[in-house]
Amino acid sequence: MRKQNIHTFIGCDNEYDESDIVIFGAPFDSTTSFRPGTRFASSVMRNESFGIETYSPYQDKDLEDYKIFDGGDLELSFGNSNLALQDIQDEAESILNDGKIPFMIGGEHSVTLGAVKAVFKKYPDLHIIQFDAHTDLRDEYLGQYFSHASVIRRCWDMVGDNKIFQFGIRSGERAEWDFAKKHLHTTKFNFGKNFDELDKVVEKLKGKPVYFTLDLDVLDPSEFPGTGTPEAGGITFTELHKAIEKISELNIVGLDMNELSPIYDQSGQSTALACKLLREILLFISK
Amino acid sequence: MRKQNIHTFIGCDNEYDESDIVIFGAPFDSTTSFRPGTRFASSVMRNESFGIETYSPYQDKDLEDYKIFDGGDLELSFGNSNLALQDIQDEAESILNDGKIPFMIGGEHSVTLGAVKAVFKKYPDLHIIQFDAHTDLRDEYLGQYFSHASVIRRCWDMVGDNKIFQFGIRSGERAEWDFAKKHLHTTKFNFGKNFDELDKVVEKLKGKPVYFTLDLDVLDPSEFPGTGTPEAGGITFTELHKAIEKISELNIVGLDMNELSPIYDQSGQSTALACKLLREILLFISK
Amino acid sequence: MRKQNIHTFIGCDNEYDESDIVIFGAPFDSTTSFRPGTRFASSVMRNESFGIETYSPYQDKDLEDYKIFDGGDLELSFGNSNLALQDIQDEAESILNDGKIPFMIGGEHSVTLGAVKAVFKKYPDLHIIQFDAHTDLRDEYLGQYFSHASVIRRCWDMVGDNKIFQFGIRSGERAEWDFAKKHLHTTKFNFGKNFDELDKVVEKLKGKPVYFTLDLDVLDPSEFPGTGTPEAGGITFTELHKAIEKISELNIVGLDMNELSPIYDQSGQSTALACKLLREILLFISK
Amino acid sequence: MRKQNIHTFIGCDNEYDESDIVIFGAPFDSTTSFRPGTRFASSVMRNESFGIETYSPYQDKDLEDYKIFDGGDLELSFGNSNLALQDIQDEAESILNDGKIPFMIGGEHSVTLGAVKAVFKKYPDLHIIQFDAHTDLRDEYLGQYFSHASVIRRCWDMVGDNKIFQFGIRSGERAEWDFAKKHLHTTKFNFGKNFDELDKVVEKLKGKPVYFTLDLDVLDPSEFPGTGTPEAGGITFTELHKAIEKISELNIVGLDMNELSPIYDQSGQSTALACKLLREILLFISK
Amino acid sequence: MRKQNIHTFIGCDNEYDESDIVIFGAPFDSTTSFRPGTRFASSVMRNESFGIETYSPYQDKDLEDYKIFDGGDLELSFGNSNLALQDIQDEAESILNDGKIPFMIGGEHSVTLGAVKAVFKKYPDLHIIQFDAHTDLRDEYLGQYFSHASVIRRCWDMVGDNKIFQFGIRSGERAEWDFAKKHLHTTKFNFGKNFDELDKVVEKLKGKPVYFTLDLDVLDPSEFPGTGTPEAGGITFTELHKAIEKISELNIVGLDMNELSPIYDQSGQSTALACKLLREILLFISK
Amino acid sequence: MRKQNIHTFIGCDNEYDESDIVIFGAPFDSTTSFRPGTRFASSVMRNESFGIETYSPYQDKDLEDYKIFDGGDLELSFGNSNLALQDIQDEAESILNDGKIPFMIGGEHSVTLGAVKAVFKKYPDLHIIQFDAHTDLRDEYLGQYFSHASVIRRCWDMVGDNKIFQFGIRSGERAEWDFAKKHLHTTKFNFGKNFDELDKVVEKLKGKPVYFTLDLDVLDPSEFPGTGTPEAGGITFTELHKAIEKISELNIVGLDMNELSPIYDQSGQSTALACKLLREILLFISK
Repeated sequence: MRKQNIHTFIGCDNEYDESDIVIFGAPFDSTTSFRPGTRFASSVMRNESFGIETYSPYQDKDLEDYKIFDGGDLELSFGNSNLALQDIQDEAESILNDGKIPFMIGGEHSVTLGAVKAVFKKYPDLHIIQFDAHTDLRDEYLGQYFSHASVIRRCWDMVGDNKIFQFGIRSGERAEWDFAKKHLHTTKFNFGKNFDELDKVVEKLKGKPVYFTLDLDVLDPSEFPGTGTPEAGGITFTELHKAIEKISELNIVGLDMNELSPIYDQSGQSTALACKLLREILLFISK
Repeated sequence: MRKQNIHTFIGCDNEYDESDIVIFGAPFDSTTSFRPGTRFASSVMRNESFGIETYSPYQDKDLEDYKIFDGGDLELSFGNSNLALQDIQDEAESILNDGKIPFMIGGEHSVTLGAVKAVFKKYPDLHIIQFDAHTDLRDEYLGQYFSHASVIRRCWDMVGDNKIFQFGIRSGERAEWDFAKKHLHTTKFNFGKNFDELDKVVEKLKGKPVYFTLDLDVLDPSEFPGTGTPEAGGITFTELHKAIEKISELNIVGLDMNELSPIYDQSGQSTALACKLLREILLFISK
Repeated sequence: MRKQNIHTFIGCDNEYDESDIVIFGAPFDSTTSFRPGTRFASSVMRNESFGIETYSPYQDKDLEDYKIFDGGDLELSFGNSNLALQDIQDEAESILNDGKIPFMIGGEHSVTLGAVKAVFKKYPDLHIIQFDAHTDLRDEYLGQYFSHASVIRRCWDMVGDNKIFQFGIRSGERAEWDFAKKHLHTTKFNFGKNFDELDKVVEKLKGKPVYFTLDLDVLDPSEFPGTGTPEAGGITFTELHKAIEKISELNIVGLDMNELSPIYDQSGQSTALACKLLREILLFISK
Repeated sequence: MRKQNIHTFIGCDNEYDESDIVIFGAPFDSTTSFRPGTRFASSVMRNESFGIETYSPYQDKDLEDYKIFDGGDLELSFGNSNLALQDIQDEAESILNDGKIPFMIGGEHSVTLGAVKAVFKKYPDLHIIQFDAHTDLRDEYLGQYFSHASVIRRCWDMVGDNKIFQFGIRSGERAEWDFAKKHLHTTKFNFGKNFDELDKVVEKLKGKPVYFTLDLDVLDPSEFPGTGTPEAGGITFTELHKAIEKISELNIVGLDMNELSPIYDQSGQSTALACKLLREILLFISK
Repeated sequence: MRKQNIHTFIGCDNEYDESDIVIFGAPFDSTTSFRPGTRFASSVMRNESFGIETYSPYQDKDLEDYKIFDGGDLELSFGNSNLALQDIQDEAESILNDGKIPFMIGGEHSVTLGAVKAVFKKYPDLHIIQFDAHTDLRDEYLGQYFSHASVIRRCWDMVGDNKIFQFGIRSGERAEWDFAKKHLHTTKFNFGKNFDELDKVVEKLKGKPVYFTLDLDVLDPSEFPGTGTPEAGGITFTELHKAIEKISELNIVGLDMNELSPIYDQSGQSTALACKLLREILLFISK
Repeated sequence: MRKQNIHTFIGCDNEYDESDIVIFGAPFDSTTSFRPGTRFASSVMRNESFGIETYSPYQDKDLEDYKIFDGGDLELSFGNSNLALQDIQDEAESILNDGKIPFMIGGEHSVTLGAVKAVFKKYPDLHIIQFDAHTDLRDEYLGQYFSHASVIRRCWDMVGDNKIFQFGIRSGERAEWDFAKKHLHTTKFNFGKNFDELDKVVEKLKGKPVYFTLDLDVLDPSEFPGTGTPEAGGITFTELHKAIEKISELNIVGLDMNELSPIYDQSGQSTALACKLLREILLFISK
C-alpha cells in the first residue's frame, strides 16, 4: 500500500522503536522580543537537508548506519508560554522514558527550559553546557518571568550554582554578567581561538549527565546570518565543529539546537550550515 | 535648545493636550500562529509615511489643518498576552478619559480586545464594525482562550448579540460561520462590489457609539501582500476608501488598523497603502 | 507506535485505498528557458497550506468530508526530460488503473505531457481544457523537440485537431497563433470578462472525458507574481474561480496545476492563492 | 569576424541609420528624495525583455518588422543634475536632427526635462501628455530648483499655459493642485475608468507635435510595485494599454517611460510589464 | 504632559546641553555611482539599535553612564551636493562651537567633506585617519569635481601632504595609487593582520587633533555585506575593534561612520554590526 | 556611425582577432538537482563588473593593458544536456583553433565537460586542477549518466587515472570518496590553511597542459553565499587568491569559473567577489 508523504531530516527516517536518538521540532517564538521567525527552522531544515549528504568525510561515518527517528514538529500554542513549555516537557519525558536521547530543534531559546525540566527530573545531577552569544540570564524581561532572555536563569533556578557552563558569550546587561560571575562558569567572546577552558570543563564533567544547548547565534553572523539577533565577533563553523567533537566525549543525555530563523537568510547558507551541523552532531553522539 | 529626534507619522506631530485624535502603536504578534511580523508595522509606517503627502486630493483636506498626536509605540510584553492587553487597555482608557479618540496601529488583530475593553467601559452600548478577511470567531485556538483567531469572539463575550458587523469575510472554520450566522451580522466575500449592506448598517447605527476595527487583510493580496495570511478575493483600495467614507458618518469613538506585516512585502506597496489609508481615515473622522 | 513525520497538503491525509483523488507533485523545471524555480512549488504548497482552512465558505463544503490522498513528490531526473516524463506517466497510469483521479502539481508546464499520455491511453477521445497566458505551441524550442514552450503542441500530436480548448492566452510567437487558429480553439486575453466562450465549450464537452491543465500564469501577475514568466493583463482569482466552477460540470478524468515558482514571490501571496485554489478545485470535483 | 556581446532590448537590434525610433537609457536618480533605484531600469529591462515575445497578439504586429535601434545607456554624472540633463538633451537633439524619434527609458522622472528641452527647440508649439500618479509641479524641493518633484513645473516654464495634459494624478501638495487648476489640464485619480477626457484631449491635439511622458507609477501598485513611491488607486495595464492606443493617433515626436525601480520588485512583474508595454508602445507608434 | 515619540540610538537619549558627544545623521547618497541606499543607514540603525545592549562586556562600560545626544537626521537636498555639504558643515560647526564632538552617521562617504571642513576650520593642524576599502582619491569622477570617489582627494586639497593616513585600502585606479604614494600614508589590504603600521601612526599623532572617518566597507563583505561596493579581502569586526581601541588613544575631535546600505543586507547583520560598533566607539572615546 | 549597445565584462572589450583570451558564458543549469539559478551568472557578472576597477593593486597590473575578448553568452538548449555540451565543445574548439585560451563562465559545473572535451582533443596529455567543495564523482545521478554531480567522473573517463587534482573538497557520498582515493589526487577540507599539497602538485605539473576548473563553492559560504549548495568550512578569498597565483605558474590551456547563482545573494557580495576574482585570474594568466 502506498504511504502518505513522509518528511524527515535526511537519513533520519527510521522507526521510533529501533531508534537511539529522537528528533523533534519545537516551533515556538512567542517571547522573542526583537525579530521572530525561529518557528520555521525545523520545517525548513527538513526541506533543505536534502541538499547535503548523509556521509561525513570529517568523521568517515554515515547517517544511514545509525538509527534516528524524526517525529516532526510539536503543535505548540502561540502566545501561551506555559502551555508550550509543558508540551515540550511531556514530549522529552516520553522519549527519555523510552530510553532514548531527545534532540530538540527550536524555535527560540526559551524552548530549552521544557526539555531541561524533563531531563533534570531523570538526572538530578544534571550539568548544562551552553554555546551562545547571549547570557540569557535576565531575571525577568518586559514584565515576563519567563522568556528567551531569561531561559538560562530559569534553568539555574533548577540546577543551581556551578552546574552551567557558558561559552562564546559576548552580549548581556551588566546585571547578567554580574550574576554569571557569581553563579555560573562563563567564557567570554570567541572561545574558539583557544580551547583550554573547554578542555578543562570537559575533563571535569566526564561521566556526569550533561544537557547540551546550542544557540546557533554563537556562530559569527558572517557564517550564520539567519538568526534574530546577530552578534558580531562569533566563532566559525570549523571552531564549533571541533568544540562539539570535544563535548561529544561526555555523557550527553539530551540536547537542542535553536535560534535559526531562516527568513532572515535569503541565501540559505544558515540553514545549510545548521543541517550540516545537525548531521555532524548526530554522528558525533552516535557510538 | 535642540530637541531630541522626534519620530511621528507625517503631519501628526501636534502636542497631546491640543489634539483630538491620539495615535499609538501596539507592536504585538505573539499569538500569531502562522507568520509573525506585524509588530514592526507602526514603526515602519512612521518611516515610510514621509513618502506620502499630508494633503488629500480625494477630500481636499490636509493633515496640517488638524490636531493629531502620535505618542509612539507601547512597550508590550511578548509571550504574555494578558499583560500586553492590559497595557493596551490602560493606554486607551487614559486617552478616552482625556476626551480624545484613540487610534491604535497593530500589531496582530488580537490587540483590538484591549482597546475595545476600554471603549466598552465608557460606552456600554458599543457597536463594532469589522472589516476583515477572517471571521476571528474561534472559541479557542491551540488551547488558547485568547488569540488573534478568537479576538472577535472575545469581543462578542462583552458586547453580546447583534452588536458586531463584519464585512469582507472570506475565510473561517465551519463552526465560526455557524456562530456568525446566529450572533453577528456577517457579509461574505467582496462586499466592495455592492455597498447595499453597508449602507443599511450605517443607517441603522447612526448616532450610536461605534468602534471600527480594520484588519487590512480585507484588501486583496494584490494590493496588500504584506500581511501574515493573505486571502485571495478581497476588496480594492478604492472600494475600501469609499466604504470608510461611508462609515465616517457614524459616531466613531475608537478605532484601529492592524495586520500589516511589512517584512512580507519587500516592495513597500502595502506599507505605502496603509500610510495613505491612515491619512484618509484621519481626515475622514476629523470634522 | 509513533509515526514518522507526515507532510501532506492540508485535509488530504487520507489513506490511498479509500481515496477518490490522488495528489502528487512533479517537481521538474529543467526545460524552463527563462527563470526556473517551479520545482519547489508542491513542497512549499504543503507547508503553506496550513495557513488556510479546510472549509470553503464559497461552496459550504469541507475537505475533511472527502477522501483525498497526497503521496508526495516524484523523484524526477533533472536534465533528462524523457526519463522525467516517463516517471510521471507511470505514476498517472497507476493512479488511473486504481480508478482514481490523478491531480498533479507541477513543476513547469511540460510535466502535463506525461500525465496526458497516461490519460489519453485510457480515454482515446480525450479533450483538453487549458488555462494559460501562453500558447505553448512551438514546434521546437532551442533545438529541443520537447519543452515547456511546446507542451501543448506535443499534446496536439496525440489528440489531434479540435480537441484542445485554450483560454486566457495573451502571448506567443506569430507562428503559434497561426497554428492555434487552424488546429485549436483559442480564446484570447482576459476571457474572465466574458464567459460566453467558456459556456459554449462546456456545453459542447458535456459527458466527454476532459483533462484540465491550469497554468497559473493565466492569472494576472498582480494576484500571482510568483511565476517564471509573468504576463500582464490576466484574469482575477474571482474570475478563475467562477470559470473552474463551470468546468467542474464536466467529466474531469485528470488534471494538473503548474508554474507556481514560490521563490519569485517573497510575500507568499501566490502560494497562498494556489493553496486556496487547490482546495476549491478539490471541492468542486468532489461530488 | 566575431562580434562583441551586443545587448539590446529584444527586437531592437537594427542599425542606427536605418532606424525610425531610437531607444536610449538615462540611468539617473540623484534627486530622488525617497527611495532611489530607477537608475537600474533600462539595463534590467534589456535583460528581462528576452522573457517576452517580439510579436503582439493585441496588435497583430511584430517588432521584427520594424526598424528600431537601441544605443544603450548614457553615462550620466551622478550628483550633478545640470550635467546629466545637458547630456540627455544633447543625445535627444542628435537623434531628432537625424530625423528619428527619441524614446528615452529613465531613470527618475526628472530626466524628462532634458528630452523636452531638445524636442521643444525643434517644435516650439510642443504639447505634453503626462501619465503619472504625482503632479510633479513643485516650484522647488528641498532647496533644489530642479528635481523629480518639480520636473513638470520646469517643463511648464518652457511651454507655458494649457500645453500640458496630466492624467491619473492622485498625489501632490495643495499648492501643486492649485497651480494645476490654473495652468494645466489635470485629470484626477483613475482616469482609466472613463476615457471621455482623454478622448477630448486627443481630439484637440490632432496634428500637433506631442511629447508623451509616461511615469509608470500611474499604474496601480498591485500591477507595478517596482517603483520608488507606490501610490494606491492607480490604473490597470489593460486601461493603460487602451489609453496609449488612443494617444498613438497623435503626432508623437518624442517620448519616455520612467520610474521603474526593479530593486523594489523581487518578483520581476514590474519589469516584465514595462517590457511588454515598451513593445506595445513601439508597435503602436510604428506605422 | 505626554511626549511625542522620541526616536534615538539606544542609550543616546540625553539632552543636548549636558552631552559631550552629538550624533547626527547625514542621509545623502546622490553621487553614488553604483548602488545607492546609504541614505537609509542612520534611520535603520536607530530602529535596530534596540536589538543590542547598552552595556559592553568588551570594555565593561555602559552607554547609560555617559552623556550622548542624538538629534536625528539632517534634511538634505538630494541632487545638489553643494547645498547638502553646506548643511552638514553648518551642523558640525554648531556642535564644535558648543564644545562637543560631532559624530556623523552617513550616508555615502562624500558627506565626510562637510564635517572635515568644519573641523579643519577649528583645528588647522588637522590629521585624518581613514579606514576604507577604496582610496577615494579621484581628481574628478564622471565630470564631477566632488563625489564619493573623490572625497579624500578634496580633503587633501585642504589639509595637504602627509596629513592623511589610510588603512585597509584594496581598490582604486592606478592614478589614485600613484597619488597616494606621493601625498598620503596608505596601508594596503588587510592591515588587521598586522598592526605595526597603525601603532606607528598612532604614536606619531599623539596629542594632535584627529578626524576619524570610518568607511564600513573596510570590513570584509562576509561580515558586512550591506554596502554599495562590497570588496573582498577585508578585515574582521574583531580586528576593526582592536584598531579603533588603539585609535581612541588619540585626540579625536570629530568622526564619522558611513556607507552602510541596509537594503543590500536582508539579514540585518550589517546594521547590527554597525550598531554594535557605534556603541563601542562611543564608549572608547568617552573618558 | 553609432554602435549598438555593447555589453562586456569591464576591460574585456577588445576585438576577437587581437585577443589572447576569449571569455564566453555558458548559462546552463538544467541538471542542477537542488537549487537552480547559475544560468544568470555570466550576465549578472557583466553588469556588476562595472562596480570594480580594471586595475589590481595586488598585482600592479591593469586589464586595460591586455587583450581580452568577451563574446557574450552561448544560447544553450535547456533540458537537453547533450545538445548544450556539444555547443560548448564547439565554441571552445573554435577558440583553441584560433590559438587563444577559452575562459568559460558557467552555469552549473557540468558545463566543464564540454570545454574539457575540446581541450583534451588538442592536448591528449591534459591534466585537470579542480577547486571545489564537492567531489562531483558520482557514476550516475537520478538515473542520469551525465550531470553536475558526475562531471568530474565523466572527465576522468577521458583523461584517466592520476590526471585530476582536487582541492577544497568537503562533501560527497562515501562511494565518491572511495573512488577519489583510488583514481584521483584529492585534498580534503580547507586546503587554504596549508599550501604544501598545492605546491607539490604545481611542481609536478610544470610544463604540462593544464585545465583549471574553479567551482566557486570552494569558498566559504560566508564570503560566497550565492551558490546552489553552500557548504560550510570553505576557504577565504585571500587563500583562493594565493592559490590561483600559484597555479598561474603552470601552462593553463583552458579554464572555467562556475556555480555562481546570483539570485541567492541579494547583497551582491558573491557576484562582486566573482568579478574581482575574474579580473585577478585574467591578470595572473596574462603574461
